[in-house]
Amino acid sequence: MILCVAANPSIDRLFTVERLVPGSIHRPAEFAQVPGGKGLNVARAATALGGDVVAAALLGGHAGRWIAEQLDAEGVPLRATWSDVETRSSLSVAGAIEGLTEFYEHGRPVTASEWAAFEELVDSLLPGASWTTLSGSLPVGAPADGYERLVSSGRVALDAVAAGIDAGPAIVKLNAAEAAHAAGVDTADAAGARAAAEELHRRSGSAALVTRGVEGAVLVTPDGTPLEGRTPAAGPYTVGSGDAFLAGLVVALDGGAGWPDALRAALGAGAANAELPGAGRLDRSRAAELAEQADVRPV
Amino acid sequence: MILCVAANPSIDRLFTVERLVPGSIHRPAEFAQVPGGKGLNVARAATALGGDVVAAALLGGHAGRWIAEQLDAEGVPLRATWSDVETRSSLSVAGAIEGLTEFYEHGRPVTASEWAAFEELVDSLLPGASWTTLSGSLPVGAPADGYERLVSSGRVALDAVAAGIDAGPAIVKLNAAEAAHAAGVDTADAAGARAAAEELHRRSGSAALVTRGVEGAVLVTPDGTPLEGRTPAAGPYTVGSGDAFLAGLVVALDGGAGWPDALRAALGAGAANAELPGAGRLDRSRAAELAEQADVRPV
Repeated sequence: MILCVAANPSIDRLFTVERLVPGSIHRPAEFAQVPGGKGLNVARAATALGGDVVAAALLGGHAGRWIAEQLDAEGVPLRATWSDVETRSSLSVAGAIEGLTEFYEHGRPVTASEWAAFEELVDSLLPGASWTTLSGSLPVGAPADGYERLVSSGRVALDAVAAGIDAGPAIVKLNAAEAAHAAGVDTADAAGARAAAEELHRRSGSAALVTRGVEGAVLVTPDGTPLEGRTPAAGPYTVGSGDAFLAGLVVALDGGAGWPDALRAALGAGAANAELPGAGRLDRSRAAELAEQADVRPV
Repeated sequence: MILCVAANPSIDRLFTVERLVPGSIHRPAEFAQVPGGKGLNVARAATALGGDVVAAALLGGHAGRWIAEQLDAEGVPLRATWSDVETRSSLSVAGAIEGLTEFYEHGRPVTASEWAAFEELVDSLLPGASWTTLSGSLPVGAPADGYERLVSSGRVALDAVAAGIDAGPAIVKLNAAEAAHAAGVDTADAAGARAAAEELHRRSGSAALVTRGVEGAVLVTPDGTPLEGRTPAAGPYTVGSGDAFLAGLVVALDGGAGWPDALRAALGAGAANAELPGAGRLDRSRAAELAEQADVRPV
């Protein structure tokens, strides 16, 4: 079972407008609303890829119940603990000219006992998990070392700029901007991304990946071999592609793939995500096709 | 009892940002979320003014249940019918420089039977209502003449550009922009607003009000007497001031006030709303103070 930890989920709302004009009223042409936050995006993508998934989420209030209902309808198995705090919303406004304008709520703080209950749930699920993903931010009110405590247990893939990196997760996966921040390296070009991945590998002692959007990704395997990969496609719906990338990676590893093939699967899933609207939504056969087209080679 | 019909409520969300920059990510400093839509704003303001209020709302899903819970906490008595469609959200982004940038969801269509059940609820409450307010838009899926059917029954105050105007509500209240649209008159100045109110009075056969923001309001009484009024204050929180104005008016009329005093009370409530954040939130004694300060005179 692949355990996808969603410590800070949100309802992701997307408005489509012709143009965003500050100071004026908009009546969006299109509107969509999905369970979101990186952890749930990974869970959705991993489910779409055929993974045996359990999402562990800290949910709150009516908004949380809506998320639970939607995940059920989407066929994503959920285990949740509950907070008295309403689950936050995130709004993206897609304008034809200015692209995405995003508004992320912080959410209200969870209490210490609500966080403890969530940690206990994750702890109880870890023994049954072949892979565990820890993605995105912790909720306000969670301890700063919330991920660190979980990282040491089992095969964990960490996608967050967090103290946990040094605790030695099996995989660290960051995008170029996050990797620059975490590794203190300029990641503007391929060489910089590789240097950042090598630094993350050195610190975590295991696999490190740095994603570069349409430019592909660089992987340093646990034994220190650097690989680069990219796949040709570039769809417009890039929100959640990083989450789909992580899902593709762990589903492939869980299925026994080696690192080069896992990187191919990750690239294919990320690119397939960009072809469909909705973070973490993808077509499995299209992801496989794009994975096959991926160019993966030693650096 | 004052019946406040909320046919198309919403969860009103307010983000506060330093500056809204199209195409970028915002992490709002402040965030508030309240039950909204004009009908619920009127109900909240009328309750704050000491009115004996019942809000009749068509609610949906988890978002609707959140609204019901909040109204209960606010002490606003609610009677609701339920739709399978999630109640919509509206987002306002308050920027220090560009002011309010607003995003109004249409919401998904309600079914014919859901609308029929709501109309039945309102019909059952009308006999017990001394005044009924019909404010704002109808939900998508409701019949275009949804308000018209209700207007003929009892003392109805209508705040909507709708077919219902010609069906003869006891009060028509519109803001200057809506009145311009409904009456086909330029309402940019006081004379225009008065001409629009007279046209609305002619069509409805009863009281007509046109509000002009900080410039005050014009009222044509049922017997055709035109009055103008304004009150000095101008707070920053103008969202919902028109709804508080209507609440002030019907609460005063319900208490036996004549038209000049009712106009004073309406102006005081609208101005008091602008002094507190949150649509339809106001301090009752401050509203009374501002009503006393209002200058109301025949034109």
